[in-house]
Amino acid sequence: MAKIVESVPNISEGRNKDIIEACIDEIRTTPGCTLLDYSSDEDHNRTVITYMGSPEAVEDASVKLAKKTVELIDLTKHEGAHPRMGCVDVMPFIPLKDMTMDECVELSNRVGERIAKEADLPVFLYEKSATAPHRQNLAAIRKGQFEGMAEKVKDPDWIPDFGGQRIHPTGGAVCVGARPPLIAYNINLGTSDLSIAEKIGKIIRESSGGLHAVKAMGVMLEDRNIAQVSINMTDYAVTPLYRVMELVKAEAKMYGVSVVGSELIGLAPMQAFLDTAEYYLQIEDFKPEIQVIENHLL
Amino acid sequence: MAKIVESVPNISEGRNKDIIEACIDEIRTTPGCTLLDYSSDEDHNRTVITYMGSPEAVEDASVKLAKKTVELIDLTKHEGAHPRMGCVDVMPFIPLKDMTMDECVELSNRVGERIAKEADLPVFLYEKSATAPHRQNLAAIRKGQFEGMAEKVKDPDWIPDFGGQRIHPTGGAVCVGARPPLIAYNINLGTSDLSIAEKIGKIIRESSGGLHAVKAMGVMLEDRNIAQVSINMTDYAVTPLYRVMELVKAEAKMYGVSVVGSELIGLAPMQAFLDTAEYYLQIEDFKPEIQVIENHLL
Repeated sequence: MAKIVESVPNISEGRNKDIIEACIDEIRTTPGCTLLDYSSDEDHNRTVITYMGSPEAVEDASVKLAKKTVELIDLTKHEGAHPRMGCVDVMPFIPLKDMTMDECVELSNRVGERIAKEADLPVFLYEKSATAPHRQNLAAIRKGQFEGMAEKVKDPDWIPDFGGQRIHPTGGAVCVGARPPLIAYNINLGTSDLSIAEKIGKIIRESSGGLHAVKAMGVMLEDRNIAQVSINMTDYAVTPLYRVMELVKAEAKMYGVSVVGSELIGLAPMQAFLDTAEYYLQIEDFKPEIQVIENHLL
Repeated sequence: MAKIVESVPNISEGRNKDIIEACIDEIRTTPGCTLLDYSSDEDHNRTVITYMGSPEAVEDASVKLAKKTVELIDLTKHEGAHPRMGCVDVMPFIPLKDMTMDECVELSNRVGERIAKEADLPVFLYEKSATAPHRQNLAAIRKGQFEGMAEKVKDPDWIPDFGGQRIHPTGGAVCVGARPPLIAYNINLGTSDLSIAEKIGKIIRESSGGLHAVKAMGVMLEDRNIAQVSINMTDYAVTPLYRVMELVKAEAKMYGVSVVGSELIGLAPMQAFLDTAEYYLQIEDFKPEIQVIENHLL
């Protein structure tokens, strides 16, 4: 079977179309690699690129992308709402098919070593690839941002994994690592009371004692005048979609509020939907790898 | 994009392993065709074979299979619990990917014409390929079975579509046609009272005024001592899985009975599970062809 890996790097340019297109061309022109999606945010001044392919193709495309961002993006002149530490800021690798997380960690190590060498950009390994527990979390590594990073790497706790105890003068440093697919799933409530969405967000998120691998907050959908629980699920195998949905429904009942709909942002793996169907249809002994026709085509 | 079609022929041999294997070898040895599954029933004396591939490959494999069954299976000596009219009894074609139902009807016509010519077996077009409304239903065409078929084809209403007004002396005749995927989905009730499953089966099935494209009956799972609503869904796009599940749950409440589980028999298309997830997760504006990562691999 063919191994397939996905990468979703964020680059620190969301305004200059020429630069964005030149970076994305590095993905488009790599044989064996498929560009799935990209979207730029002008406020954040940041572009998210999604592509997939064989491990070899994704490795090459990712290194080429890093080199191009070092060439074209100057962090000393960068302004934007989103925290960032590098011209390519974060580069996660996600196993999609016939690939273990360990193989994905190995891939991230190869890419990290090559980026340090070929793009002259120091690399932190994060998430499943992290070399110490305190270096798993992206926000912890990125704290201090580009402006504070030259000082931060002098701390023995924050020496880059590849590229030496330094940053690139205009490109900063990048986080590279393996992680499970992330699902962005927002649940809309039948109320205009933002505080209800905020309370539910607090109940379900891991950081305040809720569900493992769930981040959540309340936001207002101004144009529809309804409150939304905005959710990031960082490991749907640990906490599946249906559990989040059922818990939000149950907590909303406290206020006599219903779930009126939901939004799935971007891409999600088929298995997340199959897990959902298996739960609600109560299928015993479900074998999706055999029983779902399309799995024979993959 | 590559067109993919599935076929699920039933052949009238479920006991003699040599004959069964010789028939299935016709599928195995056809380039571009993938054998997905086969299962034989000795009581029914019948084998169901599932394969898929390009329309050209599936056409060739299907014609070769028909020729082999005419060669090896003699209906004048056939006994079994299941009604049958031919050595290959029924041969449905199901569009799986990048293929319309109309293209599948055309394929069934090509296969039918070739089977009549190359295997000397008269062919009835059924389901979406039927040439008259009274010839859509398999059971209606097959009524009278092999033993009555030579007489039946003298009726102008029942002249075969290909192969003339006759049957093959040992092979009978075959039904060929295009249809949507069929899903066999059985719902287990938390009761040992078979009559409850029978009543629910009657409520949900189309033939007694229930849901369109649903066949259902009550059966007893003797080893577990629970009653089951055994369901065949002939068009999940018309009546989706979740609607059947929710209606069975609602009707079971009348008796204070819960759904304790379900069985999915054989294969089902991914779209049926995505429809289920979309419903229960209440996803607004879901675009599975873009948002499900694996759909980019297919």
